[in-house]
Parts: sequence; C-alpha cells; structure tokens
Amino acid sequence: MTLRTIVATLLAATLAACATPRSQDNAEILRDKALEDQAGYSFVRDLTTEVGPRMGGTEADARAVAWTKARFEQMGFDKVWLEPVTFAQWQRNHERARVLGKFPQPLHITALGGSVGTQGELTGEIVMVEDYAALLATPSAQVKDKIVFIKNRMRKHKEGAGYGEAVIARGKGALEAEAKGAKALLIRSIGTDSHRFAHTGMMSMSAGQPQIPAAALSNPDADQLERLLAKGKVEVSLDINVGWTGEYTSHNVIAEITGKGRPEEIIAIGGHLDSWDLGTGALDDGAGVAITAGAAYQFIKHRQRPQRTIRVIAFSNEEQGLIGAKAYAKAHADELSRHIVASESDFGAGPIWAFKTRLANPSDEFIARAQALLKPLGIKYLGNDATSGGPDIIPMADKGVPLFQLKQDGTDYFDYHHTADDTLDKINPEHFNQNLAAWTVMLHLFANEYQLQEK
Amino acid sequence: MTLRTIVATLLAATLAACATPRSQDNAEILRDKALEDQAGYSFVRDLTTEVGPRMGGTEADARAVAWTKARFEQMGFDKVWLEPVTFAQWQRNHERARVLGKFPQPLHITALGGSVGTQGELTGEIVMVEDYAALLATPSAQVKDKIVFIKNRMRKHKEGAGYGEAVIARGKGALEAEAKGAKALLIRSIGTDSHRFAHTGMMSMSAGQPQIPAAALSNPDADQLERLLAKGKVEVSLDINVGWTGEYTSHNVIAEITGKGRPEEIIAIGGHLDSWDLGTGALDDGAGVAITAGAAYQFIKHRQRPQRTIRVIAFSNEEQGLIGAKAYAKAHADELSRHIVASESDFGAGPIWAFKTRLANPSDEFIARAQALLKPLGIKYLGNDATSGGPDIIPMADKGVPLFQLKQDGTDYFDYHHTADDTLDKINPEHFNQNLAAWTVMLHLFANEYQLQEK
Repeated sequence: MTLRTIVATLLAATLAACATPRSQDNAEILRDKALEDQAGYSFVRDLTTEVGPRMGGTEADARAVAWTKARFEQMGFDKVWLEPVTFAQWQRNHERARVLGKFPQPLHITALGGSVGTQGELTGEIVMVEDYAALLATPSAQVKDKIVFIKNRMRKHKEGAGYGEAVIARGKGALEAEAKGAKALLIRSIGTDSHRFAHTGMMSMSAGQPQIPAAALSNPDADQLERLLAKGKVEVSLDINVGWTGEYTSHNVIAEITGKGRPEEIIAIGGHLDSWDLGTGALDDGAGVAITAGAAYQFIKHRQRPQRTIRVIAFSNEEQGLIGAKAYAKAHADELSRHIVASESDFGAGPIWAFKTRLANPSDEFIARAQALLKPLGIKYLGNDATSGGPDIIPMADKGVPLFQLKQDGTDYFDYHHTADDTLDKINPEHFNQNLAAWTVMLHLFANEYQLQEK
Repeated sequence: MTLRTIVATLLAATLAACATPRSQDNAEILRDKALEDQAGYSFVRDLTTEVGPRMGGTEADARAVAWTKARFEQMGFDKVWLEPVTFAQWQRNHERARVLGKFPQPLHITALGGSVGTQGELTGEIVMVEDYAALLATPSAQVKDKIVFIKNRMRKHKEGAGYGEAVIARGKGALEAEAKGAKALLIRSIGTDSHRFAHTGMMSMSAGQPQIPAAALSNPDADQLERLLAKGKVEVSLDINVGWTGEYTSHNVIAEITGKGRPEEIIAIGGHLDSWDLGTGALDDGAGVAITAGAAYQFIKHRQRPQRTIRVIAFSNEEQGLIGAKAYAKAHADELSRHIVASESDFGAGPIWAFKTRLANPSDEFIARAQALLKPLGIKYLGNDATSGGPDIIPMADKGVPLFQLKQDGTDYFDYHHTADDTLDKINPEHFNQNLAAWTVMLHLFANEYQLQEK
C-alpha cells in the first residue's frame, strides 16, 4: 500500500463522513498524524547510522544500549531504565572458504552463530544431502570425516512460512553431522535472495554445543557447489575463526508512558535492540524498536496521556536465544498478570496487511472498532487465534499474557535477514509509517478503550 | 521478451507463411534452432563453474585460456590457436575500511584496479565532493592530507548511459586527488544497485600511475558515509593490500570456421575471457564469449559451412585496458582490410532490442533482409551510424574495420558489473538464447549474404 493509496482511502472516508458530519475522534487523529510523523523513521535511521551493527556482547552492544536510553529520554518518556541481561559471549573474527583441486575458487560463507572455529585450516571432502531429514537418514559411514553440505532451499512466502521449514538445517544440522562423525557443516543460506550474501543465524544450543564448525554459503555459492559436485568429488578448505569468549552483561532498555487512569495496567510492546554483526540491523530489528517507540511517542507528542501504562521494551540479544526476553519475563514475573496485552514488531518494515488477537474475551464492539480504525490502512482482522506476538513475547505468552499481532508482508524479508545487506535503504519510509500508524491505533485501543467499560 | 513470446511470434509468422507456402531458408532455420540450443549456455555455465573468477594475470587466467582452447576444440572449430598478450600484473590481497571516532563501524570497500596499497593502516579525515568536476574545482588546501570521497551516483539507463557520466570519478579521481595532496580516494561505486557490494574497475593509467590508494564503497556504505558526514567530521581507517607485482603473459584464444567461398575474408566476433576477481564473470563477460562462440557453433553443428571465415576471439585482459584487443589489432594489422565486419558481445545477457551497423555502403536489400530475420526476435534496426562494436573492437574500428552492434537491454547490468554478485544465476537462459539466435542471424548475413553479389 502506498501513501497515495492510504491518503486516497482516508479522503474517501472523510468525504463519506461529510454526509453525516462528525469530527474525528482521538484515535483517528493520532493515526493520521502518525502517518506523517518522522520520529519513528529517524529513530531507525539514527540507530543504524550512529551505532551500526550491534551484535549481543560486542562493544557496539553497550553503545546501542546507551544510545537507546538517551533517545528514549529525549523523546520524553516518563521513565526510562535498564535491566541487566547476562549471556555467554560469541565472537566472529573471520571466515574463509575455498574449493581445492581442479576447479579452485573462493566461496562466500559466514559462520553460524554459536559455531566453534576451525583452529586454522580444515580441509575435507563434501557430502551433499537434500535436507536435515536426509541427513538423519544418511549412514554415518558416508559422512565420517567429511564436510556435510545441506542443500535445501528456502521458499518465498508472505508470512515467512518457508523459514520454519528450512531453518532446522541451521538449528540442528551441526549437532547431527557431528554425531555421524563429520568434520564440519555447510548449509545453503536460510534466505530467499540470489545475491552473494551468506545468511548467518544462531544454531540451536538446547541439545548441546556442536563441537564441529558450521557455516552458511551464499545462495549463488551453494548453487556453484552443487554444480561442482555434479562434476565429481569436491574438496573444500575452511578457515573459520570464531568462538565463545566469556560472559557479558548487556541490558534491556525500557521506557514508559505512565497511564493516568490505571497506571498499574501495562501494554507491553517493543522490538529487539541487538542485530547480527554483518549488516546494520535496519530490518532486523531496528525497525521494530523504532516503529513501537515511534507509536508510543505519538501520545507524548500530541499530549494524549493514555489511561493505561504503555511500556516499550528494546530487548537485549534476541538473536542468540531470546535472552533479553527471558530475563524480562523472569524479572517481571510478579506483574505479568497486569500485562493487559503484549506484542513485538520483528519482521522487517513491510506493510501490515492483517491483524490478529489472542484475548480472553474480546467484545464484538471492540473488534469492530479496531477494524474500523485499521481498515483505512488496508488492514483486515483475521480472528482471535493469534499464535505469536513476536519472538520476544514468547516467554510472556507462555505465562498467559494476551497478545495482538500486526502481520507485515514479509515476502522480501528473508532476502536481507541476517546478511550484510540488512541496511537502512531496505526500509521503505511509506511502509514504515503505515506500520507506525497501525501500532498507534493498537496502543490507543488497548491503553484507552479495551474492556475499560466491563471492569 | 520471453521464449513464449518468441515462439508465439514465430508461430504466427509460420501460419502467415502457410497462406503462400514456402519453406524456411537456411538463416531462418539456424535462427530458430539457435533459440533452443544449449551449447552457448553450457559454455558460460561451465566456464564460470570450472574456472570461476579469472582476472588477468592470476593463476585462473592461465586456467581460463587452457579451458577455452579445449572447449573450442571440442566444439569442432577448424582452427584453434593462442596469441600471446603481455601486461603488467596487478594483485589484490585484502582491503578493509572502518569508521573511527564516536560512531565506529566497518565499511564495505573494494580497491580500484591499478591502486597502490596503504602499506598497513592509513587513517584520515573524509572530505566529500559532489563529483569529479567538483573535485577539480576544490582548492588543494581543503583536500591536503585528507581522504577524498566522491559521492556521485550512477543513474540507471537501458543503454548504460549513466556509466560514461559517472565513471570518470573512478578513472581520474585518484590522480586528481593526489595532485591536490590527498592521502587516499574513496568513491561511491559506479553501479546502480543498492546492495552491499562494492564495484571494482580500472583506473585510467593514461596520465600516470596514482601513488595514493583508491577504493570504491558499496552504495549502501556510501549512503552511510554521507549520513555520518551530516553529523560532523568523520575519520576513516583504510587497510588496502594490493599492488603491481610484475609482468605476465596471457593469451587471446582464437577459433575459426574456415569459409568455403572466400576464406580470406573474416567475420570477427567475440567477447573477453578475463573477468574481475570478485565475481565469476558470468555477465562480464563469460556471456559474451559464450553467445558469440555459441552462435558460430550453430554452423558447425548443423553442417552449414559459411562462405566467409567466422573467427571467434576470446580477448585477454579487457578489464585492465583492452590489452588483448590491442595485441590482436597489432598482430593482425596486415589482414584488418580483410575483416569484413567485427563485433563484440560485452554488455551482459539482457535481451537484444535493436541493431545498428557501420558499413561502407549497405544495400537496402541487405538491411531489409536483416530486419526481416531479426524482427521475430523483437529486434529493430536503428541505422548505419553505430559508434561502437564493443570495447575490444575499438582498436580494429580505429583502423577502419566495419561494425555491427546488437544492442542489449542493460538496465540491470550495472547492478552486478564488477562485483562479487556477477554470477551465473544472473543470466536468464531465455534472454541468453535470444542473443544466441540474433548473433546466428548476423553471422549468416555477413558470412553468406553481405555484398557477395556486388563483388
């Protein structure tokens, strides 16, 4: 949806309203002002420019925390504070790969998060398998002392459905390859582009730390490796210098607008402040922090103090295992029952096309009101069966906190996700502001209207 | 134009012909067979897979020469031979850049071809100028001991017109910056994409070897540097390890189908065999060698020996200054008068949309015949005022060799040109084969029909 379409829709609605004149209510006014506001976009622009990449545990992590605290204070939130989040620190120094033998050439790779290094150069013959399931079915004798290459391709999908299907290769491939005696793991990037960027991302550590190195090939390099394998045996050299280096304490950065009517009741929103180290984390997830903080800021800017408290959480280290999210749910266990609803923006900055809820008992009037406010933005209601409020909301949702979800078009999200190419130019400012307006509507609804009458 | 459209057009033409039945002539038959042939595409697929990147003077240069000679022989050309091409050897080891100060972060760069290295780490303050003309107008005092950053953006254009406008920054920027006392040069990449790939390419050496290092930033990194400069002074550290290392002898690889009627008359076509070292040189210019060799191959495959000799030249080291092309024109000076026409394919693999000629006196009948054969491929005639037959044809054209030009749609060419992202997946096989068919038509016309009746 373009700004032009949005404006045309709003104009049509306004003209229709002229037949039976009424003035816009506060939610409508805030929504329409949000469409034009620059505070959200400037947040992600400045964060990605001044801090740049900000992987958990790096020097930039601390700069990101200080930067965000200062920006929240400048924006005029009532309270801004830090809460500590401690985790094991993983570091990337360099990674190199090349094909040996008759057809020598470099390959573009990136180590997977949590990988161990190669301790210098590691060489081995490639054994290609179709996907993770095929690896499970491969006899150890075929894999022993070789480098496993999992070739499965992620498909494009508006809601990112291809990610869940493909990402198991990244999450569990190394541990399985190691169990079968492999020397190392290579995977085709979990991404939907055809550019020479390898996609990083965390391995699952729940079943243990793999002791073999693991890396992703860019998709064109994975194609190349497949073609080379069609010509015969392929030997590859890997030089991956990464690893776990110690313990680090970062912080969730939290900002609040205190409710004037029911300050103890909390609307919890946010995004994650950390990014991977390759790009500047514009889509993942500078946009999410900026959209949610920018939406909350509409209430400050336009002096519309909400009834309930709006709390914006810039979560620490989502990428390496929802670490800030778990810390938040633990630290706030006693007040989770007073979290009226929670939601995160963490799927880029594509236009929102639908919303869902997971509320105990939403009234038909409330849903109709939400539909009426969001329809001019091109957003439809899909029901009260939301299964997710975003990754950092999972620990809260597991404790019963109600959810809403604003569903973004993520068709292109996995072209950039976890690559060096996740930079500010990938954010469309019109789409970004459509997000900002939708979040502003949701905040107004939940902070000022939801079930206030029944209570 | 899709294969579907081409087939539909051909079918319509065939049906129309049914009204007054006539069988296809040899040119039409070869054209239509070329549309379906795989020999051209498999040439570029195998070259980019088995040799990979093949910068002039690298070990891969020699592999590319041997590979191409062997492939030409396999294809059944009557003669295949090498001609030596000697040049100064330039080597890239590594390049790194980072912003220092308050907003520290890495920048993605690539050294420009012919650059000297930094001899370790070089740090300096950035002075940004709009373009090369602005650099000329900048007083030395503003530039002295600083790192000049030329920010001009290349525009997209079907015929690549933006390249000529922008590339002077790469060609002459370093020498001018050096003359004003600068420590180093950075330019925005001469490219039209917004991905995190820096575009390399040669500096002009005609006025002398710059003694300061020069590199290109990826376009998103150039944007970032502009934003950082808007916030105040920016200091950057460069660590560029590149340089001239000696002399190297490579080869032009030449293949011929000997004409049966006028073997001494030559139709000279080809592409350049070298690529830059960052990508695998699929678009630039594996495609060009493969399209022209693949078109010539149609005459071998279908046993249609031409009247004139068709000569395919895989030129050595185009990228660093048309070095193979100059060697060819010099070595063949005595027979250039017997070069009936020459043309190179060196603008990627986009669909051909028009053709031009530069012939002494083409008959109306000949042009009408060419138009009739090319129209079903969606190609129109633009006149006898061709200004270029491709870069490697320049030294021959300067000696009066006539030209034809098959103009490709290059709208996206400079998204990939001289980057790591120039890989096989960027070639659309249907577009590639439309090229192959058009080149086959041109070969048939010039080898069998052009002015044969007048002579």
